[in-house]
Formats: sequence, C-alpha cells, structure tokens
Amino acid sequence: MKIALISENSQAAKNGIIHEALTSVAEPFGHEVFNYGMYTAEDDAQLTYVMNGLLTGILLNSKAADFVVTGCGTGMGSMLACNSMPGVFCGLVIDPTDAFLFNRINDGNAISMPYAKGFGWAAELNLQDCYRKLFEEEGGLGYPEERAEIMAKNRGVLSGLKDVTCQDMMTVLKNIDQDLLKSAVAGEKFEEYFYPNSQDDEISGYLRSL
Amino acid sequence: MKIALISENSQAAKNGIIHEALTSVAEPFGHEVFNYGMYTAEDDAQLTYVMNGLLTGILLNSKAADFVVTGCGTGMGSMLACNSMPGVFCGLVIDPTDAFLFNRINDGNAISMPYAKGFGWAAELNLQDCYRKLFEEEGGLGYPEERAEIMAKNRGVLSGLKDVTCQDMMTVLKNIDQDLLKSAVAGEKFEEYFYPNSQDDEISGYLRSL
Amino acid sequence: MKIALISENSQAAKNGIIHEALTSVAEPFGHEVFNYGMYTAEDDAQLTYVMNGLLTGILLNSKAADFVVTGCGTGMGSMLACNSMPGVFCGLVIDPTDAFLFNRINDGNAISMPYAKGFGWAAELNLQDCYRKLFEEEGGLGYPEERAEIMAKNRGVLSGLKDVTCQDMMTVLKNIDQDLLKSAVAGEKFEEYFYPNSQDDEISGYLRSL
Amino acid sequence: MKIALISENSQAAKNGIIHEALTSVAEPFGHEVFNYGMYTAEDDAQLTYVMNGLLTGILLNSKAADFVVTGCGTGMGSMLACNSMPGVFCGLVIDPTDAFLFNRINDGNAISMPYAKGFGWAAELNLQDCYRKLFEEEGGLGYPEERAEIMAKNRGVLSGLKDVTCQDMMTVLKNIDQDLLKSAVAGEKFEEYFYPNSQDDEISGYLRSL
Repeated sequence: MKIALISENSQAAKNGIIHEALTSVAEPFGHEVFNYGMYTAEDDAQLTYVMNGLLTGILLNSKAADFVVTGCGTGMGSMLACNSMPGVFCGLVIDPTDAFLFNRINDGNAISMPYAKGFGWAAELNLQDCYRKLFEEEGGLGYPEERAEIMAKNRGVLSGLKDVTCQDMMTVLKNIDQDLLKSAVAGEKFEEYFYPNSQDDEISGYLRSL
Repeated sequence: MKIALISENSQAAKNGIIHEALTSVAEPFGHEVFNYGMYTAEDDAQLTYVMNGLLTGILLNSKAADFVVTGCGTGMGSMLACNSMPGVFCGLVIDPTDAFLFNRINDGNAISMPYAKGFGWAAELNLQDCYRKLFEEEGGLGYPEERAEIMAKNRGVLSGLKDVTCQDMMTVLKNIDQDLLKSAVAGEKFEEYFYPNSQDDEISGYLRSL
Repeated sequence: MKIALISENSQAAKNGIIHEALTSVAEPFGHEVFNYGMYTAEDDAQLTYVMNGLLTGILLNSKAADFVVTGCGTGMGSMLACNSMPGVFCGLVIDPTDAFLFNRINDGNAISMPYAKGFGWAAELNLQDCYRKLFEEEGGLGYPEERAEIMAKNRGVLSGLKDVTCQDMMTVLKNIDQDLLKSAVAGEKFEEYFYPNSQDDEISGYLRSL
Repeated sequence: MKIALISENSQAAKNGIIHEALTSVAEPFGHEVFNYGMYTAEDDAQLTYVMNGLLTGILLNSKAADFVVTGCGTGMGSMLACNSMPGVFCGLVIDPTDAFLFNRINDGNAISMPYAKGFGWAAELNLQDCYRKLFEEEGGLGYPEERAEIMAKNRGVLSGLKDVTCQDMMTVLKNIDQDLLKSAVAGEKFEEYFYPNSQDDEISGYLRSL
C-alpha cells in the first residue's frame, strides 16, 4: 500500500517521531510511506486539522494514497475532518487493540491518533504497535473471523450510506473555499508526491490549475 | 439539553446499564434523556450501527435532540456512521479526559463509546465519569481556555467544510435506501419521542409519510 | 488526612504540576498536603525511586502522614519500593476508575502513578480526577458495597501476611544502608514537615541521631 | 523460563482464556507454562488473592518457577500480596507498553493483571500482546538502552532494600497462619508441578510436612 502521513500544526514537531515509527513498521511489510508534512512547527505551509481532512480526501479519492495516517492533539479534530470527506473512513486509534479491531472489522482507509493527549514517555512504542496491527495483515478479515461476512455486509451498507450523504470529490474541490484548498495542498513535497501517484486526472488537473 | 440514547444490536443488552448511568448523571444537570433503544437484544426493531448513524442524523438535524449518545462494540462503527451524516460531529470517547477535551475543544453534538471492547467490571463508573465531563458545563469553553477563540474558529471552518461535502438532510432522506430508513425509525418509542420534539416539519412530514 | 507528596529524580520537574493538582483537589475535602519534594530536577537532595519507598515507609509507620502520593516514570519502581516496606499498601493508579476501586476495595495508604509514560497534554486533568476518587470519600466502602465486608476480611488477611513477611520499621531503619537512609530524609523540608507530625518517638529519635 | 500461572477465585472462570493466551505466546519462545489454577470457579481448592501472593512467594523462592503470571479483578490485590513476599517483584501490567517497560526497566519476576476491570471483548488480544512484550526478550535490557546500567544499579539497591525489609521465605512459611498456607498449596496440580521443579529442599520439605 501507499501510506500517506499527514501532521497538523499543533503536533508538527512530532512529525519526525511519527514518521520514524511508521516507516520502521510499515516498510518491512512492503508498504511505501509518503510524508506530506508538516515537518516542523515552523513550516511555511501550515496545516490545520481541517486541512488534514481535506488533504486526506484528496489523497484517497485520487488514489495517490491507499491509506492515510494522521492525527492531532487528541486525534478528534483530524478524525472529524477526515470523516467529513467522501470515501474516507477514518478510525480513532489509541491502542494496539483499537488498531487491530479497526482493521479487522471496519477496514477503513485512514486513522487519526492523539499525539499530545496520553503521549508521554515511550509513546513511540505504542505508535509502532498500533501501526503493526494495521499493516501486518490485510483489512477486513473479521473478528472473530466467523463474523467476517456480516461485518463486510455492514461496511457495504455504510459505504452506500456515505455515497448518498456526501458530494463527490470534484464537487467538493470546486465548492470549497479555494484558499482553504490551496493551503491544504501547499506542503513542500505535495507536488513531488501527489502528481506521480494520483490516478485521477480530473482531480490532478483541477489542483494543478489552482 | 435533550439527549438521545441510541444502542445498536450487538450491545443492546447493555442499554439498561448505559441508560441508568446517563440519566443518573445528566438529569441532575437539568438535561432530559430520551432512550430510543434498542432496549434488549430481542427487540423487534433491530438497529445496526449504520442505522444508528442515520437515526442520529435525523434526531440532530430535526432538533428532536440536541445531543446523541451512541456506540457499538468498539464505538468505531457508530462513530463512522454518525460522522457520515450532515451536521453531525461525533467524537469517539473512551475515558473522562477524552470527554472533557471533546466538549471543550470540538464541542460536537454526538459521542460514540465502546460498550464491548474494554468494557469490563465497573465499566458503568467510567460511563458516568465521561457523561459528567460532557454534561456538567457548556461546550466550547476551550482547553486551555485562552485558546477557546482559535478553537471556535477552527470548528467554524470544519462546519463550513462539512456543509460543502454533505448533502442536506432532506436530500439524504429521499435518496437513501428506504428500507434502511424505515428500519432506522422503527424503534418502539420513536413515534412517542420524535414527533413531539422535532422542530423540522419537512423531516417530520417525510418520516410520517413512509 | 495528612497527605504526603513524594517525587523522585526522573520526574522531579513535574513536582509542581502534581502538587498543584493534588492540593486543588484534596484541600477542599479538608485534607492537608505536605510536599516532601523533590521540587526540581536540580535539588541538592536527589531521591531515587528506591528512596521514595523508604521515605514512604518512614512517613506512614511514624504516622507523620496518613497517605502518600508518589510515582516515577512508569509508576512501577516507586510502587515496588513502597510495597517493600512494612505497613505500606501502595496501589498503581493510572485512571480514575483504578483510583476509585483501589480506595473502595484495597483501601491502601499510598499510590504510585506514572508521570512520564502516558503523561501527555492535559495529564493534570487525569491527576485531578484520580485524586478526587481517592480523597472524596473514606476508604474501604466496598465495590459493590454489599461486598464491603468480605473485602475488609481479605484486607485483614493481607495485613496479617505482611506482618509476618516484613520486619518492623525500626529494624529496617537500623539495618538499612545508612547512606541510603540519610539520602531518603535529606529533602529540604523534611525536618520542617516530619518531626512536628511524627507520632513515633523511636523513629523520630533514630532519624534525628543520624 | 518456567512460567507459573495463578488465578484467584473471583476470576477463576477466565483461567482458560488466560492460559490459552499465555501458552500461545510463551511456548513458541521456548518457555514452559505451569497452570497452578484455580481452573474454574467451582474448584475445591479456592485461592484468594492473598493466597496468590503466598503461592507466588513459594514458587519463586523455591525456584519452582522463574516467573509468575497472576492477577485478580483489578490486579491490585494480587499485586499487593505478591509484593509482600521476600524476593518477589511484581508489576501491575495493563497494556503492552507497561509490559515492555516493566521487563526492560524493572526486570521483575511476576506480573499481576486486571481480569475484570477493563476486561471486555477481545481482551485476550491485549493479554497476548502483553505476554509477548514480557517473554520475547530477556529482562533488564533497559529503555532507553543507554540507561540499562543505571537501571540495573537501582534494581540492585531495591533488591538490597527488600532483603532488609523482608523475612526470609522459610521464616515466613513457619510463622504464617498454617491454614492459610495449606490453602495456598491445595491446588489440584500443586504436587505434580511443584515438587519436581522446586530447587529448595528446605521449602519442599516443609510443605510436604504440612
């Protein structure tokens, strides 16, 4: 999978720790990690948790990323913003069992974690354990496994619900505050990572035109 | 506030414990609790976590409820379904500090909690502590308080984002699978609790016509 | 109650936060808090977690304190050291429900908490919530309450076990490495707080003679 | 290592789940697991958490076991009882990071876990993750590793403290309530597991003579 890491401004200083934990776990399983920043609290391109959500929507709907790892101080704001977007199913993950069950049952395409609340000494160990649960096996295997089918069915119903409740991504891009959108894609490496990986010409074209 | 409690089928047997914890905490603060069920695992009207989300959307958009307390085994499915709906900002709350910070910072209108994962002996104590943090003071006071204003601003941007990404509730009701919708409002006490409290004639009218 | 706060060197910088949380909660319930330090990481008198345990044993066995609040990075070392001492029953408390159940069931006379692991943003809120559970009601009320009697009986058996397994405090003081002992009572305010509150002349006399 | 599992009466019904989780993790690392029971809530030999502690002291001081896994409803009572015994350093472990840090820093010889509080759906996953952290590597490696030496030094000081504060095991066995002692070693498989593994003839002899 192509995994995108997105950090917002309040926890930008921890981007390095998170990136290190994520790559150390995900790359040995054959996944590729793209760090979209913020990289430090002083980055020119400042991302709020709302922009995190918008950027997550762009990466997943364009298939530039298969999975997004994001978060904020409590994880809540980024989670809310991500889940506002079409086609994004973002879990709030605090411990390894959350991560395991989210992957087994909900099989979403994004997680948000708290990087300030509860984030003390040795917190990078918990990050690694959570990422391992997410990325060591495919999603949707069910827990317990004999309930995999009914869980898959409910995911299908949820997905159908979201198709009805959400606008499609191009409509979102056109109608959203264009300054917010520009800020969401202003990261130093957005261009380098996004355009070669995007599989949606319409989204890519629109973003290039900004 | 009018607080609605919604339980889905996998944790329906715990509806009584949750209701007891919620009323014992919320009513002394002057809030009113409406228990929309499920009441037992054997209820005729079976709610999945997806229907939880749809029902939450109906209650909040019609203003029949000001706040929704829901959940499922891990809390994740109900949270995802709730956040798929227009105008719903549903936190995942596991401990009292989550509840406090969600209320102070995110000031949402729904929470989802895990009622199976981590739900062992004395779990009703944690429920009470979480509810107390949510309902003992108004939302949005900020934490730390001097950041209340910037937090409010970000909530406004998030709310604007969601207005763009989501269809309005009437469009959702008309386009959603009508069997799913009927199931979501089939609870034994829906009629008794919803219609006298709904403040949206269009939503009420549409649901009556089903 | 007379509550003593003891911090060891690795988390000494957080003594102020802990003291503030403890006094803000305990004093309104009529308890008195004595801060035995360490006060800053640079204090002349350096306490290790082992000395925390020894000092806890001194304060409780002399009745200079009725309850000790201590901890270390994970809470584990201080807990182990405290529980090595005669007459000390020290719980490891991480969340408010731990605190509540420890007070209700185990009714010990000390707690150790983690002040580095899991200690992130807003951690002082959790401290306050834990202290509130400990100090807002008397110990040993039982949970559930109808089991209070059997719980009290088990505590009595445990106390009897410890009487057999441990040396008495004076024997400990005389046989322990006297440099370790001197270090444990070298805090800036030990003299001011301890001697007026100690109710055991033999312990006081021995410590004065060092 | 020889790992002993001990369950007390309130959580005896979960002995099977715990044993399954423990063996599935520990045996592949080459460890041997001895299940001392209780096996079911209806066992003839009823163990309280205090007896858990006494039995733990017997197993570790006789070297019949190298490590003890025990617990109770909250884990607290068993932890207190274990730490009352000479030569026992029992951590309270709730999550995998606790287990990891306890093994790395405190390098104790027993853990107590909560098997009721927080023990909900999928709790066996957390058990496995905790056991893995404990048993996949040797103890005392330090965290961070460059502090291994200072951590080892503190453990030595703690061990010395406990040598002074505690009676030796034979003194404990002789002075303890002999009915309590008989109950602690009355388990169905005590004889089968203990005597062939004990490396202390005096302890074995005394227990046989009861």
